[in-house]
Amino acid sequence: MKAFQEYYPEDLSHCYGCGRLNEHGLQIKSYWDGQESVAKLIPNEKYIAIPGFAYGGLIASLIDCHCTGTAAAAKYREEGRDMDTEPALRYVTASLKVDFLAPTPLGVELEIRGKVVEIKEKKVVVEATVLAENKICATGKVVAVRMPKTMLNI
Amino acid sequence: MKAFQEYYPEDLSHCYGCGRLNEHGLQIKSYWDGQESVAKLIPNEKYIAIPGFAYGGLIASLIDCHCTGTAAAAKYREEGRDMDTEPALRYVTASLKVDFLAPTPLGVELEIRGKVVEIKEKKVVVEATVLAENKICATGKVVAVRMPKTMLNI
Repeated sequence: MKAFQEYYPEDLSHCYGCGRLNEHGLQIKSYWDGQESVAKLIPNEKYIAIPGFAYGGLIASLIDCHCTGTAAAAKYREEGRDMDTEPALRYVTASLKVDFLAPTPLGVELEIRGKVVEIKEKKVVVEATVLAENKICATGKVVAVRMPKTMLNI
Repeated sequence: MKAFQEYYPEDLSHCYGCGRLNEHGLQIKSYWDGQESVAKLIPNEKYIAIPGFAYGGLIASLIDCHCTGTAAAAKYREEGRDMDTEPALRYVTASLKVDFLAPTPLGVELEIRGKVVEIKEKKVVVEATVLAENKICATGKVVAVRMPKTMLNI
């Protein structure tokens, strides 16, 4: 099964958070898991906050990229289209909110879950949960909007 | 003039966003600029979203670390203390909100400005603005809370 991000056109695959062509980046990969979406990864130890824990910017990045990917996948699904069909749908973040509920441990697999709570023509809202060892460490919400064609074409 | 982050104890200086000892990280440095705080940096090109622009997770990271640093500095200032005096004050993020107003260009210096809007015993709220070439690209808000002593001591 291909991840949402593996359907992104090459020009849109350089993102530090989710671009499959960014060798320095996180390369997160998101999939459907029933009605929710899920991404899993073990972050590199360099993304430390204080010893033993992940820094907040990493959590924000994971939520951001997982949710914009989920937004695109959800819109394709709503339209009954495969993700490799034209026109390509891509989303950018209008706003991102993260609530840090507990320190996120480093060295273990993190699970980022996404749930689409609103889907309109040009806007998709996705709520996210970040878990480590089945414990919720953070929750988030992303308002994603359709990427303008001008950006898609660069 | 020393940056806020240069006063952090060694154990708290490994953060990917602002730790002076994290050779892989962003090492942001924040200073007072009158009543506001400011940090400036030119992000590495690897923090790309799409060609020419920075990815959202970077913007969130910059806001997060700049604002927790500002929270600590503000509390020291309120108490009339230098930042190298005991007991050490450090803050962690309870919540982070970012509104992306315009794509943030890569390859130019970014300026992150912070403004303390609420300061209590264990909570400081800081609003942030991210500018590139004097244009506002994003705004944010961080609710920072005092780091528990148990975390300070690890």
